[in-house]
Amino acid sequence: MRTVDVAVVQEPAVAGDVAANVRRAVAALAKHPGADLVVFPELFLCGYRLDVVADAAIEMIPEPGPVADLCAAAAAHDTAVVTGFAERSGDLVYNSLLCIDRTGAVAGVYRKTHLFGAECEAFATGDRLEVIEVDGLRVGPMICFDVEFPEIARTLALSGVDLFVVSSANMFPYHHDHRVACLSRALENRTPLVYSNLIGAEAGLTFVGGSRVVDAGGELLVECGGEVSVARCRVTPATATSTEDDVDYLRHRRPELYRLK
Amino acid sequence: MRTVDVAVVQEPAVAGDVAANVRRAVAALAKHPGADLVVFPELFLCGYRLDVVADAAIEMIPEPGPVADLCAAAAAHDTAVVTGFAERSGDLVYNSLLCIDRTGAVAGVYRKTHLFGAECEAFATGDRLEVIEVDGLRVGPMICFDVEFPEIARTLALSGVDLFVVSSANMFPYHHDHRVACLSRALENRTPLVYSNLIGAEAGLTFVGGSRVVDAGGELLVECGGEVSVARCRVTPATATSTEDDVDYLRHRRPELYRLK
Repeated sequence: MRTVDVAVVQEPAVAGDVAANVRRAVAALAKHPGADLVVFPELFLCGYRLDVVADAAIEMIPEPGPVADLCAAAAAHDTAVVTGFAERSGDLVYNSLLCIDRTGAVAGVYRKTHLFGAECEAFATGDRLEVIEVDGLRVGPMICFDVEFPEIARTLALSGVDLFVVSSANMFPYHHDHRVACLSRALENRTPLVYSNLIGAEAGLTFVGGSRVVDAGGELLVECGGEVSVARCRVTPATATSTEDDVDYLRHRRPELYRLK
Repeated sequence: MRTVDVAVVQEPAVAGDVAANVRRAVAALAKHPGADLVVFPELFLCGYRLDVVADAAIEMIPEPGPVADLCAAAAAHDTAVVTGFAERSGDLVYNSLLCIDRTGAVAGVYRKTHLFGAECEAFATGDRLEVIEVDGLRVGPMICFDVEFPEIARTLALSGVDLFVVSSANMFPYHHDHRVACLSRALENRTPLVYSNLIGAEAGLTFVGGSRVVDAGGELLVECGGEVSVARCRVTPATATSTEDDVDYLRHRRPELYRLK
């Protein structure tokens, strides 16, 4: 896959109503035929109201239900899908990212490892970073606060990812912080980054949009404002980018000098 | 020291003419009475022409000469000074940063650990990161390419620095890269950053200015264009900043998940 046609969907979620959110996701896929990958925000299938996420959590079992519906839509449109959801696993609920490939198979799930603020009370904490292969593309998933830690993207980059995919529920007043983080994570790893953020207001929080796609040189390819919108463009995976030696940061690191514990 | 009054001097260097550059540095100190700290670009005392830096290299010995002159000026103006220079040590030449405190004593020297491109042929490579105490302020020094690696600033931040000081000779077309890096290093470590860049043209390179001061929230306090100028403002050291827990990245890291070798 030489370039990837990405569509980032920026819509508010309906708090607690999984069926409604899945319908919106399926409708968004239908609106973007030909996209290789469609990305939705953090917790898009349930909304960010932390007091109701447990009730709206989804088990990853192969039965009819919201995941199966999304898989069917992915297959029908020949489009990979990444979306945030609340994942139930026994007694635990995770803030997770679901990756479905273009054949409609679940490619992988990433459980948020760096929970933010009150999320620690609503979710169990993920215990590993993941590289998820989606249609031959090695995706490095991050969820919201994750993108603010350079160690996470660096760990993924050193594992050889082609593309960072970030689903977010970034809120006022942190618009600037995530913009800087998105540009920097892409640039310092020479790895393109696709960022989908929530909009709307829930539980007294205002989500700030700014969904964007950044290329492997840290340049913004496209960026949304604060309204319902879609950012769509083609991105070149990291491994297809010809990096000059001078700016190949991974090659020029000196880990023996770093004390990162 | 509750806040630090910083002046970043953005001037071209005179290639190979140490005496001329020291005179300009001393004149700049005189122009900014009352500053706590004055910062000059990478290799400011010799210029960036790599074919002549060895001849313009300075030994760090307590004898009359350019270092003594700068120390005397620092003491006379009650101002700390950070400047880039070529440092001779036996047969080796380093791309170094000289830190002088406000009493005129040498507080420390940092030798660039991440050389860029052809610098590898002109300089020996520094073998450690440094935290240098300058008038009670714990300074984390970086030189140009260093700032592009998040591991360096993070290592310094975990050592408890108050302020990053970056001297640079950043050239066309990398203006954007250093701007992103400066904002990101400050933000992700909640540590203010002072960045002095060269201007002018030498050996076919065009240095792009953009000297700037960034606060611990990643917000630009002041930024120069591409002409002779001075960026001056007060910054609040990291340790004097009240960080809310939610965005205290150092506290929320999970090093057990990172694979950074």
